[in-house]
Amino acid sequence: MSRIPGRNFLFVPGPTNIPDRVQRAMVVAMEDHRSSKFPELSTSVLEDLKKVYRTGDGRVFIFPSSGTGAWEAALTNTLSPGDRLLAARLGHFSHLWIDMAERLGFEVEALEVDWGEGMPLGRVEEVLRADTARGIRGILACHNETSTGVTNDIGSLRAVMDACNHPAMLFVDAVSSLGSIDFRMDEWGVDLAVSGSQKGLMLPAGLGILAASQKALHSMQSATSRRCYFDLADMIAANATGYFPYTPALPMLYGLRESLDLIFEEGLDLIFGRHHYLAQGVRAAITEGWGLALCAREPACYSDTVSAVMVPGGIDAAHVIDVAFRRYNLALGSGLSKVAGRLFRIGHMGDLNELMLMGAIAGTEMAMLDVGVGVRPGSGVAAASDYWRSNDRVPKRRTGRAQQYYSGHSTGTVSG
Amino acid sequence: MSRIPGRNFLFVPGPTNIPDRVQRAMVVAMEDHRSSKFPELSTSVLEDLKKVYRTGDGRVFIFPSSGTGAWEAALTNTLSPGDRLLAARLGHFSHLWIDMAERLGFEVEALEVDWGEGMPLGRVEEVLRADTARGIRGILACHNETSTGVTNDIGSLRAVMDACNHPAMLFVDAVSSLGSIDFRMDEWGVDLAVSGSQKGLMLPAGLGILAASQKALHSMQSATSRRCYFDLADMIAANATGYFPYTPALPMLYGLRESLDLIFEEGLDLIFGRHHYLAQGVRAAITEGWGLALCAREPACYSDTVSAVMVPGGIDAAHVIDVAFRRYNLALGSGLSKVAGRLFRIGHMGDLNELMLMGAIAGTEMAMLDVGVGVRPGSGVAAASDYWRSNDRVPKRRTGRAQQYYSGHSTGTVSG
Amino acid sequence: MSRIPGRNFLFVPGPTNIPDRVQRAMVVAMEDHRSSKFPELSTSVLEDLKKVYRTGDGRVFIFPSSGTGAWEAALTNTLSPGDRLLAARLGHFSHLWIDMAERLGFEVEALEVDWGEGMPLGRVEEVLRADTARGIRGILACHNETSTGVTNDIGSLRAVMDACNHPAMLFVDAVSSLGSIDFRMDEWGVDLAVSGSQKGLMLPAGLGILAASQKALHSMQSATSRRCYFDLADMIAANATGYFPYTPALPMLYGLRESLDLIFEEGLDLIFGRHHYLAQGVRAAITEGWGLALCAREPACYSDTVSAVMVPGGIDAAHVIDVAFRRYNLALGSGLSKVAGRLFRIGHMGDLNELMLMGAIAGTEMAMLDVGVGVRPGSGVAAASDYWRSNDRVPKRRTGRAQQYYSGHSTGTVSG
Amino acid sequence: MSRIPGRNFLFVPGPTNIPDRVQRAMVVAMEDHRSSKFPELSTSVLEDLKKVYRTGDGRVFIFPSSGTGAWEAALTNTLSPGDRLLAARLGHFSHLWIDMAERLGFEVEALEVDWGEGMPLGRVEEVLRADTARGIRGILACHNETSTGVTNDIGSLRAVMDACNHPAMLFVDAVSSLGSIDFRMDEWGVDLAVSGSQKGLMLPAGLGILAASQKALHSMQSATSRRCYFDLADMIAANATGYFPYTPALPMLYGLRESLDLIFEEGLDLIFGRHHYLAQGVRAAITEGWGLALCAREPACYSDTVSAVMVPGGIDAAHVIDVAFRRYNLALGSGLSKVAGRLFRIGHMGDLNELMLMGAIAGTEMAMLDVGVGVRPGSGVAAASDYWRSNDRVPKRRTGRAQQYYSGHSTGTVSG
Repeated sequence: MSRIPGRNFLFVPGPTNIPDRVQRAMVVAMEDHRSSKFPELSTSVLEDLKKVYRTGDGRVFIFPSSGTGAWEAALTNTLSPGDRLLAARLGHFSHLWIDMAERLGFEVEALEVDWGEGMPLGRVEEVLRADTARGIRGILACHNETSTGVTNDIGSLRAVMDACNHPAMLFVDAVSSLGSIDFRMDEWGVDLAVSGSQKGLMLPAGLGILAASQKALHSMQSATSRRCYFDLADMIAANATGYFPYTPALPMLYGLRESLDLIFEEGLDLIFGRHHYLAQGVRAAITEGWGLALCAREPACYSDTVSAVMVPGGIDAAHVIDVAFRRYNLALGSGLSKVAGRLFRIGHMGDLNELMLMGAIAGTEMAMLDVGVGVRPGSGVAAASDYWRSNDRVPKRRTGRAQQYYSGHSTGTVSG
Repeated sequence: MSRIPGRNFLFVPGPTNIPDRVQRAMVVAMEDHRSSKFPELSTSVLEDLKKVYRTGDGRVFIFPSSGTGAWEAALTNTLSPGDRLLAARLGHFSHLWIDMAERLGFEVEALEVDWGEGMPLGRVEEVLRADTARGIRGILACHNETSTGVTNDIGSLRAVMDACNHPAMLFVDAVSSLGSIDFRMDEWGVDLAVSGSQKGLMLPAGLGILAASQKALHSMQSATSRRCYFDLADMIAANATGYFPYTPALPMLYGLRESLDLIFEEGLDLIFGRHHYLAQGVRAAITEGWGLALCAREPACYSDTVSAVMVPGGIDAAHVIDVAFRRYNLALGSGLSKVAGRLFRIGHMGDLNELMLMGAIAGTEMAMLDVGVGVRPGSGVAAASDYWRSNDRVPKRRTGRAQQYYSGHSTGTVSG
Repeated sequence: MSRIPGRNFLFVPGPTNIPDRVQRAMVVAMEDHRSSKFPELSTSVLEDLKKVYRTGDGRVFIFPSSGTGAWEAALTNTLSPGDRLLAARLGHFSHLWIDMAERLGFEVEALEVDWGEGMPLGRVEEVLRADTARGIRGILACHNETSTGVTNDIGSLRAVMDACNHPAMLFVDAVSSLGSIDFRMDEWGVDLAVSGSQKGLMLPAGLGILAASQKALHSMQSATSRRCYFDLADMIAANATGYFPYTPALPMLYGLRESLDLIFEEGLDLIFGRHHYLAQGVRAAITEGWGLALCAREPACYSDTVSAVMVPGGIDAAHVIDVAFRRYNLALGSGLSKVAGRLFRIGHMGDLNELMLMGAIAGTEMAMLDVGVGVRPGSGVAAASDYWRSNDRVPKRRTGRAQQYYSGHSTGTVSG
Repeated sequence: MSRIPGRNFLFVPGPTNIPDRVQRAMVVAMEDHRSSKFPELSTSVLEDLKKVYRTGDGRVFIFPSSGTGAWEAALTNTLSPGDRLLAARLGHFSHLWIDMAERLGFEVEALEVDWGEGMPLGRVEEVLRADTARGIRGILACHNETSTGVTNDIGSLRAVMDACNHPAMLFVDAVSSLGSIDFRMDEWGVDLAVSGSQKGLMLPAGLGILAASQKALHSMQSATSRRCYFDLADMIAANATGYFPYTPALPMLYGLRESLDLIFEEGLDLIFGRHHYLAQGVRAAITEGWGLALCAREPACYSDTVSAVMVPGGIDAAHVIDVAFRRYNLALGSGLSKVAGRLFRIGHMGDLNELMLMGAIAGTEMAMLDVGVGVRPGSGVAAASDYWRSNDRVPKRRTGRAQQYYSGHSTGTVSG
């Protein structure tokens, strides 16, 4: 394919746009990763990632891998073959993690959920209460299900677990939320939190990132799953003096140092606020401007990092995506597996602002018009414009959604 | 000022956005600019720039300077103090060139023109016809007056000169047109064509570029203006073997090599077509969408690289620009000198596409709304969308505007 | 540590110096790794890596991981827990691979060898002949043992296996040889060849690279080792259409594209020749200039990518390395585990030339003098200079060392 | 020419090697150079350059040009056609500046000096004393004559001028000294100090830099030389609010910001000390190791930024340079005009350390041996090694050489 002039508009839900400062920081000469100077860098990024995870007790691990590798590290370091897990299959990525767990020899009870819905906390509660033998060793949850644009309330999940007094470990996929949507590892009692470099951390793919609680680290001793590349014990031993067990991806570590600096300069809460503000504008464009539906059912679970847009009957979402890419140099995310062709996705995560999204909204609109979706020209931009012009980019701190399960509709269930 | 997240939208009429390929090409280690290897690079860019100028006989010069330096080189190498020049003051940049000529000791007859109008060919013709002594040594013309968004018809100017049989040299400022708007040095008989690196050539500022006809080169012998840094004779001597008289700006030359490759890969005519197509969309947004007026009076002189937008009475254009920059990270051009506060400018030149402009249009609209300009939200984007969706990015070759002076309304004058 | 002015001299045996062209190629904006354009890139690098491996039938896999990950992929995709392997522990990296195999549940018969010696082909032969039940499923061999500077003759190993008519798979670690020392996957009947990005491929660490023969691929079907992240089946399925099962490390892929271009432009044989020529100069400096011994015992196994230098008694090699780094900004490799303190290593692999090595030789010499090693100033440089000045950088093709086992001393054994 | 593997060794006396940090800093997106944010950058570099010049009262100017442009700016802004200047022609660059002055219409009394000698202060004094009418308006001096490796004692020149009570302006070419050799604008009463970006400032060429004293600025009012591009008045007006009169070379300004940071982090005095220490090692290699002569006659005028090496009779220095470049990827400077073929030059300025120079010394030695210069292999490196190993990189502050003219041999003249 020949080059289309001008900048590509990248609005898949990861990888995200790399800020120039991070791009520059990665242009480094190679160096001895066993030098006396190297630990300065490695120690600083490992420590600072803990702040992004909002953990004090936990420990963070960086693997040269994708986020998928960190999924595997979370499972094999803490579980033994045959161990039972509970999960909800609410989209493509929760499905893939369940699939991985099964392939690695664990037994997964997967709650089937309509795609677009969130974690079924009531059913989770039922299963946990029924598990009187405490055979369930872990719960797998996607904080943000990237395929449907659904954010799950991990705080409430923890509340359910606590209410059931269930000792299972809480495994959370925070790949498309960490650094973009409020994530509170310690407060929510998350035991294993998986992420990657290419989303809210604003880097290329290439680093699998894992945070483990003390409880998770303790479970390593009894976990008999075979592991070597992803063995946390090797990492702990090498990290202790500031090194890695094998050659690290240097440009990525330098890029990470810079992206952490950017994050702390802006401030985590302001970043979460900005993501919400930008997401609200995008949702205004989709629902008010275009009159289309989101895949996510409930406003409470709308994702601030990705919106999955249902196309009208008779339209193939893949056609919208294809025209957007070929004619307008706009990359949108596609519908995966069960929802292929029925939705496209607009990522709104990372280093973004209003006008980048305006380009994406306008381009999506043109591509939809080109393939016969009857939206009114300019309607999406107008709705986003109205929202953004009447709201602050840095809104006041939203009240947390955590705890809403118990403070809300299902309190009865718990007290019952 | 703290960093605003996301990408800056740069829509001043220069410097323009640098394509990633060019950005990369400039990341070079220094090297010996007198090595046996160096001439490969220097010779290739000097030769290829001739193609961009569409000159076979002419010679191109590259100075480490801004375009202003190339203005000076054009004048001092071909004229002697006291020499008479004819020019039209139709905007800030034509004014600055006239001012430079006067400071360098030349006598300029400046035709005063309302800003927004093009070169007054009828008045030029009168002056030339009246100059029976042939005392006018040169005519200064801005191909594209960046301050007003007016493109002048250099082909028709040449036709006027030819009709008058006047031997003056034709000096053309092609800074904001070269590589973006059709420019035909040989066909139009241009003697000195000035440009810079930071516009259609998609590079940072730092290179002043000058093309000189054989006639211009011949005039060097009698030109007694003092010159040294900008002396073409030194350049000719050094360039002959592929070198420069002083240390060249290496990253810029490597960047230029890459930008020339990009230009030839896309094709000059397709680039001009793309600029026209994009400009038409922007103009649709301004006039049809927002109902605002361009500074440029006649469609025939609308610039395909920059649009100057008149703001409604009571509004300060500087306010629009300030809000666009501070709130939306959008850089617009300001009104200069006589039109300060009365207009803002949207550059649409270089490596651009529809969605980059959509971001700019949406951002301009929001900024205007914020400061009280009563445009309808989404209207600009809708109008541009309509235009772009119903036209090809690569339109059929437009018929040249050259010659229209004589084939058009003023034929009578000529025949009279 | 504050910055030491000037360039760091990086002479650890990996990561290696990144050529400017590769450095530039990695400065890329992120893009949709599921776009219709992406397969162009992925397919081209996968195909071209086969040429570097010199395999026609084999298949190449790229993982976001270090080379260690590719070690794991080689084992878990082809073996089942309890499977027996044969290996020789002849340095730190062969040790680590054995250790990994054991941790992953395989039974390894490890032949203990003095560090500095090569693969004990006679003993290998004995074991294979004794294995009449054909219980040994694979042989692990390091083509180039980076910790001792010993290159093993894989062609002769294959000849031994063939002579014994043994069906074991041949697993080869080619991490510090691929792209630097002649490697012939098909000719030598290698089944699994592991490499990484940060050595002869002249990239940062971050890609684990694995080539698998048809036989190895076939063994996947019966291999019951648990695997998911490194599952070749997922890769095969995704690569079939030009994609990856998870987000790839884009800058690395673009860098790999450029490094492959560089490799083919220079030519593999010329690259091997250059490595030999440069290594010979370094060895001249060490042995003739300084009068020191290499760790590698036999000239036939001297490595063309790394030289391990024994320090005189009473000297701590770590002291040399520390002074070299802190005072002269020179990074040397250290002695690992059994040989810690007794040797230091000079890497000479990747994008290198004489003068870079002269800096390293001079710096090593100064550091040795500073800590009391009694070498004559300038002696190393003089010896290397003599070698390089009297030899061509691109020597005639050396006759292969493969087959020398059988054509050499142990022919008798075979015929016996 | 096809690519030679490995890094080029750049040892021409400018452009110099760009530190990675500066290289990275120049990878910037374009931005509006008239934005409200821009003055932060421009003001900070203009102010900080004053510290490098060691001037409090002076004003610094940055032009998009080479250093040659700054030569012209110095002359045309302060002088009128026909003005008389005094200069010494002691090398190629002092010759070029004299030539420029003549071409720009000034009358230059040029003291002819053997190349290799420094400024003839006694003859200067005679001329100044003889100029009772005070007709000499300025003295042109090269602080460091790059073509011969001679550093002139500007402090002593000022002392001569003061002793003669002569009001001429002092014009100094500090192109190859600023930021590398102690330069004291205010202390030495320098009126116009010319520099460029590509030497001690460790940037690519592209910025002409000029510092002007208050006396020089005052002289602008009466200076009638024609000027426009280089007119300091335009710069002063635009710089007042943090802008430039024409589009600035943005990457260069960002690079300059970083190079100034690097300079202040290391410290000017330590940088000068490092240059002296490195230069001493190079001179040890040349004179003690190889037994060759420097072009510079007196140790007092040996340049700490460049050494010009006389080749033995019968050898063409151009041949050494050619072999060094083609065979060893080493760029040496050539002999210019009068000394062409008789010397080659080794630059040792900017971001350098011992091992980079060791590569250059070893390469020069090999090239000399290849063309028949009978030096002993390793001798240069050994001599440099001896010097560097027995001296500190950061020597104690040397006593200034300024004033030595009067405190030394010619005191008598003054008191007479």
